[in-house]
Amino acid sequence: MKLFFELLVTTVSDIGERAIIKSIEKILSTKNIGDDCATIEYNDDFFLITTDMITQKTHIHHQMTDFQIGWFVTAINLSDIAAKGGRPLGVVLALGLPSTTSLKKVEEIMKGANACATKFNTHIIGGDTKENPELTLSGTAIGIVQKEEFMPRRGAQIGDIVAVTGTLGKAAAGYYALQQNINDPTLWKDLFEPHPRIETGQKLAKQQFVTSCMDLSDGVSSSLYQLHQMNKVGFEIDQDRLPIAHGLLNLKSTKTVDVLCSALHFGGDYELLLTLPENVFDKALKICQNTNTNLTKIGTVTKDKKIILISNHKKRLLPNEGYEHFKIHRFSKN
Amino acid sequence: MKLFFELLVTTVSDIGERAIIKSIEKILSTKNIGDDCATIEYNDDFFLITTDMITQKTHIHHQMTDFQIGWFVTAINLSDIAAKGGRPLGVVLALGLPSTTSLKKVEEIMKGANACATKFNTHIIGGDTKENPELTLSGTAIGIVQKEEFMPRRGAQIGDIVAVTGTLGKAAAGYYALQQNINDPTLWKDLFEPHPRIETGQKLAKQQFVTSCMDLSDGVSSSLYQLHQMNKVGFEIDQDRLPIAHGLLNLKSTKTVDVLCSALHFGGDYELLLTLPENVFDKALKICQNTNTNLTKIGTVTKDKKIILISNHKKRLLPNEGYEHFKIHRFSKN
Repeated sequence: MKLFFELLVTTVSDIGERAIIKSIEKILSTKNIGDDCATIEYNDDFFLITTDMITQKTHIHHQMTDFQIGWFVTAINLSDIAAKGGRPLGVVLALGLPSTTSLKKVEEIMKGANACATKFNTHIIGGDTKENPELTLSGTAIGIVQKEEFMPRRGAQIGDIVAVTGTLGKAAAGYYALQQNINDPTLWKDLFEPHPRIETGQKLAKQQFVTSCMDLSDGVSSSLYQLHQMNKVGFEIDQDRLPIAHGLLNLKSTKTVDVLCSALHFGGDYELLLTLPENVFDKALKICQNTNTNLTKIGTVTKDKKIILISNHKKRLLPNEGYEHFKIHRFSKN
Repeated sequence: MKLFFELLVTTVSDIGERAIIKSIEKILSTKNIGDDCATIEYNDDFFLITTDMITQKTHIHHQMTDFQIGWFVTAINLSDIAAKGGRPLGVVLALGLPSTTSLKKVEEIMKGANACATKFNTHIIGGDTKENPELTLSGTAIGIVQKEEFMPRRGAQIGDIVAVTGTLGKAAAGYYALQQNINDPTLWKDLFEPHPRIETGQKLAKQQFVTSCMDLSDGVSSSLYQLHQMNKVGFEIDQDRLPIAHGLLNLKSTKTVDVLCSALHFGGDYELLLTLPENVFDKALKICQNTNTNLTKIGTVTKDKKIILISNHKKRLLPNEGYEHFKIHRFSKN
């Protein structure tokens, strides 16, 4: 009987991260949640605040160096600032450390965090250290953007282009390379040391033509489904236009590696997914190229509220198979 | 031989939180660390950012309710904003949750966090949920204060008064009450639901007469030693003036409870410790009373760089025995 009641209790692993967030939103006295960053109005600006926690078991691959752990937690937080067009103002980092952690390890983590912050024109400005049975790092990035330049998640217009910066599947390629013992540190580097699109985000935002934007941490399909829900629109995505990373293409599809699925669902690329009017695409492309980033049109925003993948004039529904915490452990050792 | 080398590795538990922070400071590209909050200059204001992580093992007493866990992590972050005279603008909360955590528990935690935030005129504006083998909550509070009103840690002048808000040893009383199975929820409440001095901090800051300030999360002795190091001054503290909490006095000294030691070293009271010129003390007292808080003169700032405790004209050195993570587990079950 006891067991029966225990089974009836809903746990976080039953429902996944997004359902938890929905439950939390109902409780809170503000409805500011639901974008990559929380915003605080300040004169003509928005302050942007975002927090992301990583932990040994779910995010820290055992082949990640300590430097890369610090880089990673800083980069993923800055990526949320980038997606809003923000200029980063600082990052604070709370470190939960097993008591046996060596000081050397802490120093290497902080060197990585500092290197990432300075690479993207900001600093680690504060933090906290606490004992924790499991290595746990919680970063919070602060940024600023003019209100009129803020790139929201909500705003996609029917007929807009859907575009992505950079390439898709870099992180997946690194993951599979590690799984297959392919000794190519450049592949792992994309997985462990992502580069948030800080400069590109700011320059695109200045143009005020991006109608919606988010980062691709969760993968293309999951991100499109989030934009779809928020904007009440659909998307037609041209499979043959997807800018798949060379590293992933080189791995070729095997039983364990499905190139297309990895590019669409794996996540971890920290590129920008955005919608914008067709007539400004060339300008946006030039801006991206000026910041050493490509921009690829991958589809259009549609009135029909479905997410369709087109290849060779054949259409099929794109499944929603993005990474969700508590359900998949992308980085677990098992 | 292997074992011998392992023993030579310095771990975080060997050196404690403050030594770790010193090592980290050397690595970072900015020297903004060392106050309760990081600051970001913005026109005539400072934005204040502070982060604090708590985890089941070291901070969450098994008799704490889920509501109190959420309250606690929010309150301790807001307390750092209070100590700088800041007005809180929002709190973000990253939740590291064991996969078996019930949704009900998460909701109760967030109700507590929301209740604390709204009590102090702010909101939970964002967050993150991740799986973690150990319940781990990392809060980040954001505040704002006019530059000229900012209450720094550095600034104590020789001859200044040392004062504390409220009473000392409330948290200790709660802890010992729990240890002794004294069923008095009001005692635990002070331990589990601290009230950051947000309003008092802002009103004192407005006067621009506080020369240095920090919160008492680490306890009186530890906090005085931190101010001493930063300000290169000493303190004479009048033991008989210490505003010891009634709850603690009522427990009386026993083998396990030393009232004076608890009031000086235990910490967890989240009051403000401040220095200010003697001639403004009465005004400061009135301001505090107007926010339903007492202010007690407990000593003076001295040129002699020692921290002295005086009682009955007898002087002795105050030992530095404050709470330090990795060394004492105040909340551990053992």
